Amino acid sequence: MTAARALTADTDALSLLEAVRRTREATLALAAPLSPEDQTVQSMPDASPTKWHLAHTSWFFEQFILRPNAPGYRLFHPRYEYLFNSYYQSVGQMHERWRRGMLTRPTAREVLRYREHVDAAMQDLLGAGAEDVPLLALTTLGLNHEQQHQELMLTDIKHVFGVNPLRPAYREREPGRPTAAPPIRWLEFPERLAWIGRDGDGFAYDNEGPRHRAFVGDFRLASRLVTNGEFLEFIEDGGYRRPELWLSMGWAAVETNGWTEPFYWERRDGRWWYFTLSGMREVDPAEPVVHVSYYEADAYARWAGARLPTEAEWEVAAAMLPIRGNFVESERFHPAAAPHPAGSPDTRGPAPASGAARSADPPDAGDAVPAAGLAPPTRAAAAEDAAARDGEGPLQMYGDVWEWTGSPYAPYPGYRPPAGALGEYNGKFMCNQFVLRGGSCATPRSHIRPTYRNFFPPDARWQFSGLRLARDA
Amino acid sequence: MTAARALTADTDALSLLEAVRRTREATLALAAPLSPEDQTVQSMPDASPTKWHLAHTSWFFEQFILRPNAPGYRLFHPRYEYLFNSYYQSVGQMHERWRRGMLTRPTAREVLRYREHVDAAMQDLLGAGAEDVPLLALTTLGLNHEQQHQELMLTDIKHVFGVNPLRPAYREREPGRPTAAPPIRWLEFPERLAWIGRDGDGFAYDNEGPRHRAFVGDFRLASRLVTNGEFLEFIEDGGYRRPELWLSMGWAAVETNGWTEPFYWERRDGRWWYFTLSGMREVDPAEPVVHVSYYEADAYARWAGARLPTEAEWEVAAAMLPIRGNFVESERFHPAAAPHPAGSPDTRGPAPASGAARSADPPDAGDAVPAAGLAPPTRAAAAEDAAARDGEGPLQMYGDVWEWTGSPYAPYPGYRPPAGALGEYNGKFMCNQFVLRGGSCATPRSHIRPTYRNFFPPDARWQFSGLRLARDA
Amino acid sequence: MTAARALTADTDALSLLEAVRRTREATLALAAPLSPEDQTVQSMPDASPTKWHLAHTSWFFEQFILRPNAPGYRLFHPRYEYLFNSYYQSVGQMHERWRRGMLTRPTAREVLRYREHVDAAMQDLLGAGAEDVPLLALTTLGLNHEQQHQELMLTDIKHVFGVNPLRPAYREREPGRPTAAPPIRWLEFPERLAWIGRDGDGFAYDNEGPRHRAFVGDFRLASRLVTNGEFLEFIEDGGYRRPELWLSMGWAAVETNGWTEPFYWERRDGRWWYFTLSGMREVDPAEPVVHVSYYEADAYARWAGARLPTEAEWEVAAAMLPIRGNFVESERFHPAAAPHPAGSPDTRGPAPASGAARSADPPDAGDAVPAAGLAPPTRAAAAEDAAARDGEGPLQMYGDVWEWTGSPYAPYPGYRPPAGALGEYNGKFMCNQFVLRGGSCATPRSHIRPTYRNFFPPDARWQFSGLRLARDA
Amino acid sequence: MTAARALTADTDALSLLEAVRRTREATLALAAPLSPEDQTVQSMPDASPTKWHLAHTSWFFEQFILRPNAPGYRLFHPRYEYLFNSYYQSVGQMHERWRRGMLTRPTAREVLRYREHVDAAMQDLLGAGAEDVPLLALTTLGLNHEQQHQELMLTDIKHVFGVNPLRPAYREREPGRPTAAPPIRWLEFPERLAWIGRDGDGFAYDNEGPRHRAFVGDFRLASRLVTNGEFLEFIEDGGYRRPELWLSMGWAAVETNGWTEPFYWERRDGRWWYFTLSGMREVDPAEPVVHVSYYEADAYARWAGARLPTEAEWEVAAAMLPIRGNFVESERFHPAAAPHPAGSPDTRGPAPASGAARSADPPDAGDAVPAAGLAPPTRAAAAEDAAARDGEGPLQMYGDVWEWTGSPYAPYPGYRPPAGALGEYNGKFMCNQFVLRGGSCATPRSHIRPTYRNFFPPDARWQFSGLRLARDA
Repeated sequence: MTAARALTADTDALSLLEAVRRTREATLALAAPLSPEDQTVQSMPDASPTKWHLAHTSWFFEQFILRPNAPGYRLFHPRYEYLFNSYYQSVGQMHERWRRGMLTRPTAREVLRYREHVDAAMQDLLGAGAEDVPLLALTTLGLNHEQQHQELMLTDIKHVFGVNPLRPAYREREPGRPTAAPPIRWLEFPERLAWIGRDGDGFAYDNEGPRHRAFVGDFRLASRLVTNGEFLEFIEDGGYRRPELWLSMGWAAVETNGWTEPFYWERRDGRWWYFTLSGMREVDPAEPVVHVSYYEADAYARWAGARLPTEAEWEVAAAMLPIRGNFVESERFHPAAAPHPAGSPDTRGPAPASGAARSADPPDAGDAVPAAGLAPPTRAAAAEDAAARDGEGPLQMYGDVWEWTGSPYAPYPGYRPPAGALGEYNGKFMCNQFVLRGGSCATPRSHIRPTYRNFFPPDARWQFSGLRLARDA
Repeated sequence: MTAARALTADTDALSLLEAVRRTREATLALAAPLSPEDQTVQSMPDASPTKWHLAHTSWFFEQFILRPNAPGYRLFHPRYEYLFNSYYQSVGQMHERWRRGMLTRPTAREVLRYREHVDAAMQDLLGAGAEDVPLLALTTLGLNHEQQHQELMLTDIKHVFGVNPLRPAYREREPGRPTAAPPIRWLEFPERLAWIGRDGDGFAYDNEGPRHRAFVGDFRLASRLVTNGEFLEFIEDGGYRRPELWLSMGWAAVETNGWTEPFYWERRDGRWWYFTLSGMREVDPAEPVVHVSYYEADAYARWAGARLPTEAEWEVAAAMLPIRGNFVESERFHPAAAPHPAGSPDTRGPAPASGAARSADPPDAGDAVPAAGLAPPTRAAAAEDAAARDGEGPLQMYGDVWEWTGSPYAPYPGYRPPAGALGEYNGKFMCNQFVLRGGSCATPRSHIRPTYRNFFPPDARWQFSGLRLARDA
Repeated sequence: MTAARALTADTDALSLLEAVRRTREATLALAAPLSPEDQTVQSMPDASPTKWHLAHTSWFFEQFILRPNAPGYRLFHPRYEYLFNSYYQSVGQMHERWRRGMLTRPTAREVLRYREHVDAAMQDLLGAGAEDVPLLALTTLGLNHEQQHQELMLTDIKHVFGVNPLRPAYREREPGRPTAAPPIRWLEFPERLAWIGRDGDGFAYDNEGPRHRAFVGDFRLASRLVTNGEFLEFIEDGGYRRPELWLSMGWAAVETNGWTEPFYWERRDGRWWYFTLSGMREVDPAEPVVHVSYYEADAYARWAGARLPTEAEWEVAAAMLPIRGNFVESERFHPAAAPHPAGSPDTRGPAPASGAARSADPPDAGDAVPAAGLAPPTRAAAAEDAAARDGEGPLQMYGDVWEWTGSPYAPYPGYRPPAGALGEYNGKFMCNQFVLRGGSCATPRSHIRPTYRNFFPPDARWQFSGLRLARDA
Repeated sequence: MTAARALTADTDALSLLEAVRRTREATLALAAPLSPEDQTVQSMPDASPTKWHLAHTSWFFEQFILRPNAPGYRLFHPRYEYLFNSYYQSVGQMHERWRRGMLTRPTAREVLRYREHVDAAMQDLLGAGAEDVPLLALTTLGLNHEQQHQELMLTDIKHVFGVNPLRPAYREREPGRPTAAPPIRWLEFPERLAWIGRDGDGFAYDNEGPRHRAFVGDFRLASRLVTNGEFLEFIEDGGYRRPELWLSMGWAAVETNGWTEPFYWERRDGRWWYFTLSGMREVDPAEPVVHVSYYEADAYARWAGARLPTEAEWEVAAAMLPIRGNFVESERFHPAAAPHPAGSPDTRGPAPASGAARSADPPDAGDAVPAAGLAPPTRAAAAEDAAARDGEGPLQMYGDVWEWTGSPYAPYPGYRPPAGALGEYNGKFMCNQFVLRGGSCATPRSHIRPTYRNFFPPDARWQFSGLRLARDA
């Protein structure tokens, strides 16, 4: 059972409690390779210390579930409400974001005690088999919230290590065997009046709804992600020196920041290297390019005579695909490995019958989860989609890297955030950000959906963000 | 004949030349009340000196029309290509935007000579009755470009005067008679698959196309703009102190900039005043609120239990309306008046048979210009729109204030900017900006269209920007 | 009669009035070559618009002399007290310094009317032959204040023109005939307990007193200023790339600002040019280097195996010298010339019997004005100083360029600023600035004294600042 | 034997080695109360993480002593030269200062191993009884360098804890018994030609020499430091709101930073508290005021009708006094105590025969160390100084708080920094800083001397800086 289905009829408090337990453990497992020093530092204002993530995800349960619902719940510390509030103005004042890295206290050890305190209270609250649906829904939200922070823990510690001249490794990783990316095929999708967004079955964030119709014209979508090798051609063709390829703000970012290659890349003695969670590695041309901003994704697409897909196009293409790919779990069960967009099995050839990376997955990890159904498409759409899907569908739609879409992050028609503090979860960020789709190698598999909308400002590079091309038909 | 129709079949070089002459004269008329000192200063990086506008609009003709097309054309000054390039990277390097106000030379007088030089060359080029369609199209673009800068000259000099503690007046203006805004009616528009964007008939910017279909669900639109009086209720209800009403970036703008009221407003002895192009005036509660950012427009709408319309909704509502309103021409023909969103005649009651403000308009100013036609709407849409239009249609859709929409400025499906430097005109700004519609009291009437897309960053306040509410049906 | 002697016994109101008239006229003469646009712009926060200087110097008379002393004096404009207050907190609030360039109103013409208004009132006040000593002292201060702003008008307009890509000339200037700087001689000064500071005879600023004793050890002083040619050797020896030559803050300035040569210098096709008040000229190696910061002066001296003199050393060396040199007056009487540190006649060989540059000077301009006397020096000091003076004394001590000393600007022992607003004139700036001595080509000759202490922050470059070397004995 | 005397004739390598051992242990003792998290964070660019201090002080021995002098010395880590170089440009490039807090690796534990590696090599180098005088001198410099960082570790961790909303305590401290400060007496010092600076006997920094003569006029010096109680009167008299009391840059600092009280002070419910190394305490009015900038010290003195002493005056007054006071050692031997300017025994009445605070001092801690001798003073000076000294001398000259002097930090006449990288130790900072004298409660007693010149920029507040008043005679 995954958190994404927590609100369906067959979910009860006890199985949800088990999901809580497993998710909370997974969080700790991600922090396990880190020293107290590693967990303390904030290497840029957009990132947060590991310690802060560990505390804030507990704060979320404490603030929104235990405090209002658990009779006699005792706050672990009176100042934590202030210290570990991320951005909920309705809850009250909060410690300034850019100062999170100045907090040496509470120590990592004290934060663990905080987590235990919250976990015990959640056990008490849910252990009796509560049937309160809003409470179960909140708990599911808390789980998904924690999963988001699991990914951020990885991207943020990668940044901490990446700015350290010693370039420490988070975890070792076996170097992959050299491969070649398959050629891009252009999958065609005919125009349709599509149903977009959450369909009300299973957990989804508020920003994925309401489900609504959108007209999506003919388009073509690349069968796989853009690779490092392809991006290198862009670099070598002067991509970072040609303003005509860039948005105006993108070019300003290039000039202000001196960008000349993707984030974490370094040129040494005529060869390209990048920093990974396993330390410095030579760039593999077959892997998907990652750590590019929206600006770079957009400029690359323009250079390639293509464009980024809209989020509706992406959702149309993903709708019937199984949720399969290179997710964080594959790594979590391999202690010697670190998340990296190494390319999904799909890209690397036929999925092995029982490959090492797959065998440790939960039994149903590879199952095709039918995405939220589309409304009756315009003529021929369903038939052609099916063609695209059967053996010919797009690869790497899930996992590996988040895919920048060309869609500004905006409310869906009829969107209204929930009342109260949780209304601040998503809605208030619908400005000057772009939507990314599909999850990454740092995303928990159970966390992603075809309707999932991630969003970051167009200059963000520290996430596992890459791109896929689209074209007008 | 207006520039907006310059490319229709009946346009020839001579009538276009006459349009050039009139537009260039109108630009000078706007600068007439200004001293050389006034024309020199740049009061913030986003604004430009009058003198720079006068030169840059000439540069545009010189660079894109005369230089490539006029045999033997002599550049007025070898450095002007650098000095008066606004943002065309393809043309070459340019003087940094924020340094425009440091140029005391060329003087205002020298810039006038530059204009005369360009005007004479345009006369020579078009005077012989050229039939070269691309040349006529470029000239039409140059005219529309100059009209955009006419509006910017007004907003920028308003800023120059507004930050001067002496609060000088650009022009005098008769105080309006006190009026009351009519109550808001909520006009209903049924769902449809609408055709959006330029229809290829008459001039339009590239960003208005391609014409395409978009699904627009049921919505309701307010019959008029939000007024100062209504905005005052927001202020008095703590609107600027309640983070839950704001986008996250909007609230940051409120805190960083200390916003507590619309731009140009001041509270003196318990009464509200604002700076206008005619100097300080007491705020008129019946007038449309103006000089609010997207953030303020969005927060007001949320406070009012409504939202901003999308640009598609606005275009649907405007499609069949005449282009009538409070434009800059009404003022230009009245030397003693300065542009101000005083409210269109529509708002103020029945249009006078021959009111002072109307009599000087060109004979056809009030005619209904049918907007680019809609594709067959879904059931009932046409009938209901007609109802909304006949005597019951929205007021103030054109002129007075630009209306913030909730739509991020993004390319229409299939949009591709033209090749070459003019491809930089619009497309490269499609990031982190929001669309405004309908023109303002500082817009030339012939410049606006139902498909016209203006755009500014969400924190911009120095334009004549206001808002109209919308609601889900 | 000059302002510097205004308070001696033989000064009466009428001759002071004549000095006021001449000084005010000289100010206008400096503004004469400038357009209204030129007079409006502030090209950096440290500089002020010409128009502002013209108004502020009038404000000084209005605020400190007319307002308290002239019965029935009518303020020219109620807001000018606010607009043209430079930094006198005791007077009240003031317009922010960095916003001075945003004031297009009052126009240059209106500022002239302001000056006339103030001049007429000063005529009325002093014209009757007032004998009020404090009033005469204040007027003398007002004159000296205006002279300081005369120099700033020149340095500030040089900056305005220098940042303009057109590099306009303030005034033409005949190119000098090529010359060679004489070799440096090292003049020796034996240790002494010197009397330093104003001696109470004639006008001096408060910061020049109290006169006090200071022990000055043996030192050697270079006989002339450092030249462009010498500074070029420093550049060519990697001076701007060797951190060991620089103060820590100086090196930070080099790196932050990308300094690689003195301000206003440009390298074109392998030759060095600089911007002067007469436009771009090729660098003359025999001229004194100018527009260097304290950091550059200090680094140059270290590179040369020397140091900057202390201000006490400079004053000891200057004490018995005539005040002769390349001052602004030489230029003012030659309409075709612009101030420039062309080298004093002394440097260029024997002073001509009646050279063009000298003939227009007031009859006594070349007279040796004995500096404030020294207390009995220690043994041998007077004799050796005399030797240094007779035909062998230091050249270029006055005029050409202000000389950076190694002395932080600090109060003299027993210094106490006067009570009231005028106490803010000098004292409150005694922090993080360094003393410069001797005046420049932009200084009025009657304004300078051997005890005169100019001061600027160590990164300031837009003044006519150069250097002279010193060494320990 | 203390480090300060290491270079006298009776110092040999073995006793110096013992001093090294004790100093290095003392450093570790200061870090003992701190978690790995505490040791990692940099709470502002001017401060450094504990871990960095621990490594950099080892780097100093490695770089300047072991590397050039210890045959076969093996660098602990090849990148540490880069990571732990503070500001020695001659050594090579260095990690940017403001990024020190981003280094989670090496961990605190690894830094300890680095220290052990260096300590062992120093043991090897000196253990054989080396007689190389330059080597012993360098080692003495290394010791003094480490002592400086001991103090910085305390001020920097105080800042880390001070910005943490939890306000953690570094160590507990017994609250002092309430006391009252004795009234200020004004000690008179007649004018003299004084010898200032190091006399060559025992260790001193280069910036303390050369010894030279300076004329010091009559002055009066307050018998004790300014107290919290006195500073409160300044606050209550509007001291932070009256620009006429401040230097211009000081007032700008007040306005920009919103200063309304000394650093670390907070007003809660009408009472004043401050953050100490033992946590929040109520302000004790009898204690010396601490954590004030030069600007605040200067403004207070002006408000009090006095001024700050010059550094020469301070040195004259301190010359014959014993080096006695509230130093860091008193605390180090009391595990339950944290450094705090609690007032020296002198202030609190007669020194106890064997008070708790004294008994743990090394046996000779209270001995009068005759300061570097003065040259023959002018008439009467010696006699009067003696009077001031015998029972009537100034109190608290050493320890408690560093005393801001009115002297900009400038080179003494004839000063020349040593050749090579160690020439960067002091000289290159002689710009825009002010001298402080006398040491603080965080200074090791053996580190201080009457000629010791500490220096900080005038806006620095996080050091233990306070003030003593002076007056003209």
